[in-house]
Amino acid sequence: MSETDWVYLNGEFLPASEARVSPFDRGFLFAQSVYEVTSVYAGKLVDFEPHLARLKSSLAGIEIAAPEVDFEAAHKELIDRNRLQEGLVYLQVTAGAHGPRDFYGPEVLTPSVFMFASHRELIGDVARDGITAISLEDTRWKRRDYKTTQLVSQSLAYRAARRAGAVTAIMHEDGMITEAASANLWIVSADGTLVTRNLSSALLPGITRARVQMLLGGVSVEERPFSLDDLFAAREAFTSSTGAMIAPLLAVDGNPIANGAPGPITRKVQAAYYKFIGADLSAIEWL
Amino acid sequence: MSETDWVYLNGEFLPASEARVSPFDRGFLFAQSVYEVTSVYAGKLVDFEPHLARLKSSLAGIEIAAPEVDFEAAHKELIDRNRLQEGLVYLQVTAGAHGPRDFYGPEVLTPSVFMFASHRELIGDVARDGITAISLEDTRWKRRDYKTTQLVSQSLAYRAARRAGAVTAIMHEDGMITEAASANLWIVSADGTLVTRNLSSALLPGITRARVQMLLGGVSVEERPFSLDDLFAAREAFTSSTGAMIAPLLAVDGNPIANGAPGPITRKVQAAYYKFIGADLSAIEWL
Repeated sequence: MSETDWVYLNGEFLPASEARVSPFDRGFLFAQSVYEVTSVYAGKLVDFEPHLARLKSSLAGIEIAAPEVDFEAAHKELIDRNRLQEGLVYLQVTAGAHGPRDFYGPEVLTPSVFMFASHRELIGDVARDGITAISLEDTRWKRRDYKTTQLVSQSLAYRAARRAGAVTAIMHEDGMITEAASANLWIVSADGTLVTRNLSSALLPGITRARVQMLLGGVSVEERPFSLDDLFAAREAFTSSTGAMIAPLLAVDGNPIANGAPGPITRKVQAAYYKFIGADLSAIEWL
Repeated sequence: MSETDWVYLNGEFLPASEARVSPFDRGFLFAQSVYEVTSVYAGKLVDFEPHLARLKSSLAGIEIAAPEVDFEAAHKELIDRNRLQEGLVYLQVTAGAHGPRDFYGPEVLTPSVFMFASHRELIGDVARDGITAISLEDTRWKRRDYKTTQLVSQSLAYRAARRAGAVTAIMHEDGMITEAASANLWIVSADGTLVTRNLSSALLPGITRARVQMLLGGVSVEERPFSLDDLFAAREAFTSSTGAMIAPLLAVDGNPIANGAPGPITRKVQAAYYKFIGADLSAIEWL
């Protein structure tokens, strides 16, 4: 199923094709389930601690007690078993399988824990050439600060984007952009200020977003909501996420952002982030 | 797992304890999955056709092609195998398991289909004695007209209700009630009019709700949004759903509705509905 062979399921490492869960699992019946995706570069986990902290926040948010699992050790064993040098590790914790289906669930849950690894080039064509997007209404539930597997809106957004010949979608609500379909959005505004939306229940507190802020050094960031019009008037735009890291956003709904090419601040942020994860900047000839 | 032995999974009938799905199933990873629950009374499915129609609408809404399954035959076989006289049949269709995890999913999906049955008394204490509720904000996604398994809000609502000593929750948004945590809500307003919210993407088009409208005969229904204040000022309130059918709502947040007892219109609606499903009204001594 996965691109690599070994997965982790409830304390065991086993081949992906053999992994099975009960359809009575509350992750399957109720999406009572949260997840994290951590990038791996040169065989090392990137920013694992904040991912783990966010997992705990998400679990508390939907009332699942954090399971007694050494997540870091399990990640490392999965990386070793799959000989993962560059890619992602996915972790999902559900409220588990318990007796007959009911909305309450039992007082004490026994969570299910599932993990798999996938090989992926993290600094590749997307980073070099950028992406395009469509815009659409954000239809997600109201607690987007919890990273649940309630991902129908995002899946539909990606499908709509693909139909329109774009890569991703920019989601908006009440006239303001919340985030991209699986990434935070940043713009360099018409007056040259770097802007990203302030954290709230309206969007996910991105780990890459937080890291970029730490890496910016002298560049100040304005954290505030901004509109599609602000995006169209921007000098530059890019997304931040675990999987695509820093991706230049070149056009939305067929309208180019500025001249439709990756901008200088975007390249500066990319360089800072790639340096942070340990990449050899001199080997990235387009940077 | 289930209260009864046999479940249906992807074309096979098997013991509940043996049912397993891949954790790569898009129902598990993305909640890309819809469901229906149909009641069974005296061994017969109640209003199966509209449930099937709503299933198809939900599937289309989240872009899953309807699987080539004779759902009615599968329901009937499940009822037979489990000797189900009174209870519920649960049906879930997911976007299936496909290769590596990605938001798009493949162009052509092979859905997973899961069904189980559970024995339950449908005209019991809840119908006779009524229920209490808390009120809370509706945090669900914006397309509640599709019956997806994105049910975290509902699960949290039921858990909050239980902590407060109540049975269910009344959800509201922008000052107006949307519905109960897994039921539509009806009031007899201060001026004696029967009111339930008009259909839109804000709430589920209940099958029991529609059936009640058909059964009302001379009683007219006003379909419009109403507020918590309207509920507190109501002469009567009740919920309609597959599992609890018609449940008198006696109090919300500790405040009784009218005199805190099931009202005459509620009893009239119960009688009409129980007659429709084939119950012997003379055997229901409290009605």
